[in-house]
Amino acid sequence: MKIVVIGSGTAGSNFALFMRKLDRKAEIIVIGKEETMQYSPCALPHVISGTIEKPEDVIVFPNEFYEKQKIQLMLNTEVRAIDRERKAVITDKGEVPYDKLVLAVGSKAFVPPIKGVENEGVFTLKSLDDVRRIKAYIAEKKPKKAVVIGAGLIGLEGAEAFAKLGMEVLIVELMDRLMPTMLDKDTAKLVQAEMEKHNITFRFNEGVSEIIGSPVRAVRIGDEEVPADLVLVATGVRANVDLAKAAGLEVNRGIVVNEHLQTSDPDIYAIGDCAEVIDAVTGQRILSQLGTSAVRMAKVAAEHIAGKNVAFRPVFNTAITELFGLEIGTFGVTEERAKREGIAIAVGKFKGSTKPEYYPGGKPITVKVIFRKDDRKLIGAQIVGGERVWGRIMTLSALAQKGATIDDVVYLETAYAPPVSPTIDPISVAAEMALRRFR
Amino acid sequence: MKIVVIGSGTAGSNFALFMRKLDRKAEIIVIGKEETMQYSPCALPHVISGTIEKPEDVIVFPNEFYEKQKIQLMLNTEVRAIDRERKAVITDKGEVPYDKLVLAVGSKAFVPPIKGVENEGVFTLKSLDDVRRIKAYIAEKKPKKAVVIGAGLIGLEGAEAFAKLGMEVLIVELMDRLMPTMLDKDTAKLVQAEMEKHNITFRFNEGVSEIIGSPVRAVRIGDEEVPADLVLVATGVRANVDLAKAAGLEVNRGIVVNEHLQTSDPDIYAIGDCAEVIDAVTGQRILSQLGTSAVRMAKVAAEHIAGKNVAFRPVFNTAITELFGLEIGTFGVTEERAKREGIAIAVGKFKGSTKPEYYPGGKPITVKVIFRKDDRKLIGAQIVGGERVWGRIMTLSALAQKGATIDDVVYLETAYAPPVSPTIDPISVAAEMALRRFR
Repeated sequence: MKIVVIGSGTAGSNFALFMRKLDRKAEIIVIGKEETMQYSPCALPHVISGTIEKPEDVIVFPNEFYEKQKIQLMLNTEVRAIDRERKAVITDKGEVPYDKLVLAVGSKAFVPPIKGVENEGVFTLKSLDDVRRIKAYIAEKKPKKAVVIGAGLIGLEGAEAFAKLGMEVLIVELMDRLMPTMLDKDTAKLVQAEMEKHNITFRFNEGVSEIIGSPVRAVRIGDEEVPADLVLVATGVRANVDLAKAAGLEVNRGIVVNEHLQTSDPDIYAIGDCAEVIDAVTGQRILSQLGTSAVRMAKVAAEHIAGKNVAFRPVFNTAITELFGLEIGTFGVTEERAKREGIAIAVGKFKGSTKPEYYPGGKPITVKVIFRKDDRKLIGAQIVGGERVWGRIMTLSALAQKGATIDDVVYLETAYAPPVSPTIDPISVAAEMALRRFR
Repeated sequence: MKIVVIGSGTAGSNFALFMRKLDRKAEIIVIGKEETMQYSPCALPHVISGTIEKPEDVIVFPNEFYEKQKIQLMLNTEVRAIDRERKAVITDKGEVPYDKLVLAVGSKAFVPPIKGVENEGVFTLKSLDDVRRIKAYIAEKKPKKAVVIGAGLIGLEGAEAFAKLGMEVLIVELMDRLMPTMLDKDTAKLVQAEMEKHNITFRFNEGVSEIIGSPVRAVRIGDEEVPADLVLVATGVRANVDLAKAAGLEVNRGIVVNEHLQTSDPDIYAIGDCAEVIDAVTGQRILSQLGTSAVRMAKVAAEHIAGKNVAFRPVFNTAITELFGLEIGTFGVTEERAKREGIAIAVGKFKGSTKPEYYPGGKPITVKVIFRKDDRKLIGAQIVGGERVWGRIMTLSALAQKGATIDDVVYLETAYAPPVSPTIDPISVAAEMALRRFR
């Protein structure tokens, strides 16, 4: 069997490795635009800040690692089209026939049509090349004032990196808060307050209408000219669907797949940022665009091609980040989104400490949990705290993934030791708060 | 309604507070032997080490806190008997009639009949008074060599405290490893290796047959006299069942209760260390004797008395500790216990890092997961690592509490960010390892 993968990012690279483990004999070919296989886009801000030394450090395995496992690499290669009738991928380096084709073509940074957005000193932060360009620009121009357009994860993490390098940072966001798809206004404010302690300011409900100067010297916000000598455009990503569309595959905002991750052509799979998944709470088709989703999709597609009857599960989009030592974890729907979707909910919120009161070193932690009223199920959570947020968001997410109700959280057996956690955990207390809303 | 609680520890104090929240009018009386309400026995080693400054710091709330909530306290009071016919508790300060009685009488340190065990300088570590005595002895005698009998949680945490105070510590354990009920030999060795770096030595498969000198100057192990100027006896606890037995209630190793925590007399409940619970894996009646179990039992008993039809769930005994910065988390059955009980299992073990390779500061973490072969369910885990063990043991425990199978762990959606966690979490990899044993 000849299995061809288009895309050498997280989804494509992991798919090739999983596939090789499951099938020692299959011919596996990865076609990629860039010169390397998988690296972590989430790590890129940490390369800018210098926490990770060199851009190349974020490459997970060198190309030889794949080649040793007899995964053929066709890198620096452009795919022109997919010929489904002849079952071949047309590239700038010739045709590649396939039995099974996996689209792992990822997403691209969305750049809004702002005047001057192509000027020198204006960047996106999606690829290794982006990071190399940003680092070179910083080294050369020594910018002092950065403007970040967009307060999503990449915008905030980019802002953190710039601030750590000593820049004054302004974040401009069209919505009324940071991380608007992941946090509600109350929890977003906790993160904002922490970032504001570190030379970062925010302007919400506003947009940049023009980037002035090349190299950039200012941005226009309303009538105002705000000085800026570096601009990061972090306004989200868009699934790469053109290739699939041109091949006649069913496409919405992402490539449409069934539970086995097969596109409308059963010999073609789509995985990672380019493919739509099912939202575990609403049942809607959504784009997940998380590295962890890409890995699980890679696994499921490989297993299905290997003959295992396996389904990709609906996603809660469990996510974590750390900004200036503050951890932020989320999954499922926000309170705001639930209301927009017409879901009746009961919300519980509790601010506690990560350790018992009598033990030194506890840090504040705020837990917000969201339950659906009609079936009492846990459908979302937001946690902001000084430590151990990962564990708490994962515990709640794992419960939600197993269909837990509010009673499962309230009576949850938790682990306690004074240096580690309180006897009654903040997640249980937050659920207890929500329980009152059911009465 | 007159509700009487015997016992002012974690179970009794929490019960009184829960009960008051559920019933503003009930008369609630707590009868306690000690002079204070709840304090954390788990915090006591940290008082010895000085991490927590004063013994009194571990008292959760002052007595006035309870009295303000109209919880009547009868402290420094000995209970002589329960007269079930007249529904009254007989104390050294008179009779207390009840409508509902809650036994929260706890457990006592088990002291094996070793010759010389009553000598000066030999201690248990269960109560505030124990800590006061140990601290006074250390201040006066400045002991240099401590011997700890028993390598359970309290023994290890006591040993850590002594080592932090500069003592040389020898731990003597009858079994072949430390934490023998919670860890298998392989994971126990990881903990042992860490402790041995900190002036602590172990002797396994051996016992102390005599304590020599008062004040103590040595212990006898086999034919050998080993110098010791402080001895801690940490050989486990026993449920206090005498009162219940004398009252004619059904008693095994602990007081027998139904799922609502009622004893064989439905007007008498038993909660906390003194009561038996159901083991979630084996269905056997066991003693849990964890603070977290005590709190949940307190909650369920209070709710049941308040008229709610609620059941105490079987327990996995999820537990955590930290020793010299190493976190150890466990729940469910060990591999060894599963074999002893005749449960066919599939085990997966993985040693990874708490962060992606390209991000600095990751720490080693070993995850061991245990699944039951016949229904594929997660029935136990042991994690030893440099950080973030709580979150991982809790995630796995939460899954087990919801009846998760190996597939739920393998396909678990996890949260990833470079400063916090790897893309593919060690818990998923460990489960993947176990999956091979199913084939």
